Amino acid sequence: MTEKTKLINPRLPRGFEDRTPGDIAAVGQMIETIRKVYERYGFDPVETPLFEFTETLGKFLPDTDRPNAGVFSLQDDDEQWMSLRYDLTAPLARYFAENFETLPKPYRSYRQGYVFRNEKPGPGRFRQFMQFDADTVGAPGAEADAEMCMMMADVMDALGLGGKYIVRVNNRKVLDGVLDAIGLADDPARRLVVMRAIDKLDRLGPDGVRLLLGTGRKDESGDFTDGAGLSSEQAEFILGVLFSNIASEENTNRIGGPEAARALRPNARFPVNDYINNVSPSFTEGIAELSRMKSLFYSGGYGPERIKIDPSVVRGLEYYTGPVFEIELTFKVQNEKGQDVVFGSVGGGGRYDGLVSRFRREPVPATGFSIGVSRLANALKLTGNLGAKEPVGPVVVLVMDKDQTARYQAMVSELRKAGIRAEMFLGSTKNFGKQVSYADKRNAPAVVIEGSQERELGILQIKDLVAGKQAAEGITDNAEWKAARPGQFEVKREDLVSAIQKLLSEQ
Amino acid sequence: MTEKTKLINPRLPRGFEDRTPGDIAAVGQMIETIRKVYERYGFDPVETPLFEFTETLGKFLPDTDRPNAGVFSLQDDDEQWMSLRYDLTAPLARYFAENFETLPKPYRSYRQGYVFRNEKPGPGRFRQFMQFDADTVGAPGAEADAEMCMMMADVMDALGLGGKYIVRVNNRKVLDGVLDAIGLADDPARRLVVMRAIDKLDRLGPDGVRLLLGTGRKDESGDFTDGAGLSSEQAEFILGVLFSNIASEENTNRIGGPEAARALRPNARFPVNDYINNVSPSFTEGIAELSRMKSLFYSGGYGPERIKIDPSVVRGLEYYTGPVFEIELTFKVQNEKGQDVVFGSVGGGGRYDGLVSRFRREPVPATGFSIGVSRLANALKLTGNLGAKEPVGPVVVLVMDKDQTARYQAMVSELRKAGIRAEMFLGSTKNFGKQVSYADKRNAPAVVIEGSQERELGILQIKDLVAGKQAAEGITDNAEWKAARPGQFEVKREDLVSAIQKLLSEQ
Repeated sequence: MTEKTKLINPRLPRGFEDRTPGDIAAVGQMIETIRKVYERYGFDPVETPLFEFTETLGKFLPDTDRPNAGVFSLQDDDEQWMSLRYDLTAPLARYFAENFETLPKPYRSYRQGYVFRNEKPGPGRFRQFMQFDADTVGAPGAEADAEMCMMMADVMDALGLGGKYIVRVNNRKVLDGVLDAIGLADDPARRLVVMRAIDKLDRLGPDGVRLLLGTGRKDESGDFTDGAGLSSEQAEFILGVLFSNIASEENTNRIGGPEAARALRPNARFPVNDYINNVSPSFTEGIAELSRMKSLFYSGGYGPERIKIDPSVVRGLEYYTGPVFEIELTFKVQNEKGQDVVFGSVGGGGRYDGLVSRFRREPVPATGFSIGVSRLANALKLTGNLGAKEPVGPVVVLVMDKDQTARYQAMVSELRKAGIRAEMFLGSTKNFGKQVSYADKRNAPAVVIEGSQERELGILQIKDLVAGKQAAEGITDNAEWKAARPGQFEVKREDLVSAIQKLLSEQ
Repeated sequence: MTEKTKLINPRLPRGFEDRTPGDIAAVGQMIETIRKVYERYGFDPVETPLFEFTETLGKFLPDTDRPNAGVFSLQDDDEQWMSLRYDLTAPLARYFAENFETLPKPYRSYRQGYVFRNEKPGPGRFRQFMQFDADTVGAPGAEADAEMCMMMADVMDALGLGGKYIVRVNNRKVLDGVLDAIGLADDPARRLVVMRAIDKLDRLGPDGVRLLLGTGRKDESGDFTDGAGLSSEQAEFILGVLFSNIASEENTNRIGGPEAARALRPNARFPVNDYINNVSPSFTEGIAELSRMKSLFYSGGYGPERIKIDPSVVRGLEYYTGPVFEIELTFKVQNEKGQDVVFGSVGGGGRYDGLVSRFRREPVPATGFSIGVSRLANALKLTGNLGAKEPVGPVVVLVMDKDQTARYQAMVSELRKAGIRAEMFLGSTKNFGKQVSYADKRNAPAVVIEGSQERELGILQIKDLVAGKQAAEGITDNAEWKAARPGQFEVKREDLVSAIQKLLSEQ
């Protein structure tokens, strides 16, 4: 350390960020609000470590076009591969399977923590970010899925976002039926490419999705993403489903099966052809589940202004097997190009009946959702629902005489014992002005001054920085300011604590 | 996922653990208490990400006898090496240097989070664990170090550990002076081996340390640790210092320099020889700093029963340059072999004036300490200072009729809207007993029952599980129990919420 070495550049790897006091306080407050809703719904906390065996996590990430498939992995001493978790769902599946004998079933848990994606970072796109999830494992019915959607809505309301969000709900089985119809029944790889394309509808619009369903798409940076290679008929059929209101408010309850598929025809903005006769039973099942969920929303008092069926919801993750859902914030913000866009998704989830079965012979149904914490916090800052007030700083006892720090230390200890935030100035300067400007920078309510004169008289000078600032606003002349010493007053040494208490209560 | 694949064994990599609801609640409560003390001392939060560039972290870990030197590292896309942080100090140094222009100086911060050690795990020794640190950067004087010790003491008192801890303080410069004296002035590698040996005094006792200072030591598992290769005279001189009360209560204020070294002679239990005349100026400096700190402890009201000077304190980390300190819990616990031992260290720290200078030409003094969160939480559980009460579970609405879930959902929604923890049973069974035993396992206060008969009558059965358990204790006969249905009562459907509210307030 003491050797002559070249200086190290203080910086972070790309895609990682430091968090400020304001952000920490605001997010902490937000998480507490969410936690209370989860608890009210009967969920209990659990926490898993950041590492899992790579095989435990499986490969379910969307957009895994990077060499190590989006995950940070390393080989342990014993040659086994471990990875940092990329979400909080795969570790839950492991946890549930490992503790199967002792956990209550259904098992309701919530989990909060960092996840990692080894992806290309971008604006608002980090390689470490926080999620806050809730899941029910061992619950097969649409009741459990419906509950997830209602809980998401309650979370948004509790955060003060009422009227500014919509929970959008779809079912993978509906889309599965459509994919069967266009002849992709036995082509899981292409099905995945199609689903990922649809998932980008929000970001890319229908034209972008059409390219990804067809020959592929070049993005603004010039990177080319291969398409699904569908014919334009196949692509238009899919887009037709996405833009139909087939499963929407008006008609979920009256349709199902081939009728449902045929319902596409009248309002399709795209040509619909014979595919509709090939729609598989999965489609019917999905529609029935959506219908059941809708009636549960109704009895819970959640109307379509809060929770809405929407066939364009896909969710990127590969492991979903039934209902999928997404929280969208509907208010407008400006994107990097200065265009008005809706804020968009801050979380979502769905049913993943296969994930736990990877560890156990028997089927283990499960459903859950995840909130992107930083993204939601950003949204709350924009809407003014997250007070990032600057915290009140400590009372600063100035060091007027380097040999008297024991005296100053005693004052600080007295204040702290009375529960008052306080500190002695610990910097190397003796400059009075620099010490006061430190106190200002810390948002200190007051500074305490004891020079040799005060010491002899048994008194202290207290400078009320808040009152001082207000008074100073009316004084333009520097000499006058110095004479008036706004906000400064004298107290007996023994009255330090009571004087500061009085000052704080009046500020 | 649906393909026939072999089952994955649900388990964690060695040295990682899941956390239970009780642990999460208890640690959360403890952290909140610590946080309040840090805030009262004028510290503000900051959080850095888990990854840093490997060169940012440096190589300061003790016991780095594993291939990748105790750190989890991986190479990024651009060939640069990144590592998971192994403590919260090295990242702070980077953060301070990176934000030098805007941060107040001195900069007081506290930080809480996980750190990672790629070490051999053992009982109570994990590869991921939580630390909670506080540091002051830009404060050169012993005042800042003394404040750290007082804050550690206040944290222990706030946690209810008054009388059960001691903050032990030493100064690396004292030890440096001793190492200079025995001729290791220009041998940094061996100095480090010596310091690590001394650091193990707690665990290994003087005989173990003597072996590590000399030819080396074989541990119980048969692993051999190389020694520092000192002569027995050199080793005995060091042990003499460790066991002297050279800097203790009685004589810190009256000694310094060669006199201090000579003070070893009278009470040394080991032969002391000419080395004492070679003790370097560093020794005198260290003694003077300890003396200054002692007078600050005195003026702050911290007597030797809380903070004590102790020359055997070393701290394992290589980057310390002056005062070092350690919180030791002094109560007895049983070790794995059933022997009574003191609980030992739950945290510590020291001055590290060189760490930030790695990023900046100018010297940047700094001091701080770190609390081992899990270890401290374990201690608090042992002393009964951490209530790990089982949380009250949700009211469970039973599913008596699969077709009526919308009705049950409505009940649950009503209860939740009234702020009551509630859920509908979401498992696949219709078995009444299994549903009730689920509610029991969840620690539910009550279950709500609406069968077809109740539905027709517009009533509900509520089973108070707490009262039921109490009543059942007096009933030994099964038939009698069934007839009495202890704790069960009937309410009108519309009185659900008020009945549950009454029940909860009475439990």
